[in-house]
Amino acid sequence: MSDILETIFKRRSIRSFTDQPVPREMLVDLLKAAMAAPSAANHRPWEFVVLTEPQIVADLKDVLPYAKFNAPAVIVVSGRPEQGYTESGGNYWVQDCSAAIENMLIAAVGMGLGTVWTGIYPIQTRVADVRRVLGIPETAVPLAAVLVGYPAEAKPARTQYNEARVHWEQY
Amino acid sequence: MSDILETIFKRRSIRSFTDQPVPREMLVDLLKAAMAAPSAANHRPWEFVVLTEPQIVADLKDVLPYAKFNAPAVIVVSGRPEQGYTESGGNYWVQDCSAAIENMLIAAVGMGLGTVWTGIYPIQTRVADVRRVLGIPETAVPLAAVLVGYPAEAKPARTQYNEARVHWEQY
Repeated sequence: MSDILETIFKRRSIRSFTDQPVPREMLVDLLKAAMAAPSAANHRPWEFVVLTEPQIVADLKDVLPYAKFNAPAVIVVSGRPEQGYTESGGNYWVQDCSAAIENMLIAAVGMGLGTVWTGIYPIQTRVADVRRVLGIPETAVPLAAVLVGYPAEAKPARTQYNEARVHWEQY
Repeated sequence: MSDILETIFKRRSIRSFTDQPVPREMLVDLLKAAMAAPSAANHRPWEFVVLTEPQIVADLKDVLPYAKFNAPAVIVVSGRPEQGYTESGGNYWVQDCSAAIENMLIAAVGMGLGTVWTGIYPIQTRVADVRRVLGIPETAVPLAAVLVGYPAEAKPARTQYNEARVHWEQY
């Protein structure tokens, strides 16, 4: 198997972390991975809030039901719909920001870090709660909170490949 | 720089391809990468149509204004909203399918292939056109067409990291 497939298969949702903090340079590397993602018409409609102070991390977890794990760092990814590429009334910001998030998750594997992607948008009450806690303005929409740390659990690499979901030439 | 960052930075949108066909096993490897992506509550609300026959590839390109490049293969990724995880009226299928697409783009780099992500959803006329050409039922929503082939152009690795988009502890 190629190295890249192995790395992609090793990406698993990690929900238990050691106490070791994530160095700032590694967090910046994750952000560099995020901002290497493609975006529609290269509009890059994304913003990142990086949390490492225990109190703000705790305040965020208070409003996110699926983020109650002991990660020492959190990266909240928000979209800016008005900066996203729009055509025929449609906007690609959710897809663009999701690609950026996935880049971070894959990069983290190769850097020895663990992550879990926890959802915010499109749950409107959660969007409002996260905006309030982090001071995110109405022009930005928090999409997801990525928990980051050194893993304290090991999970086997896997794909969930299912040939029933694959159609050749026609659906 | 770590290998994984290098791979992620090497992912560039490739719009010129050689005539060499992509072996079926490599297309399956891309699908294995796709289906290794995370999805909300592990619902995996995705379907893939893989096109390699020149006529059907041409028919698809006819209805996609940003896909008029000479890739020998196309993977159309569709979501199935009713299979996606829904809470409080919100559904994560677009995010889940976007993560699967980004996994394919990163895997392709490591396999020596080139790709470009071209948009379908949320442009409603384009969704309808692609459904018609590929026989996709109303229960599935074509999100994007990923063109795949051996690259005939070289682009430098890069991130578009912009520290103005990064906020520490608060927005």
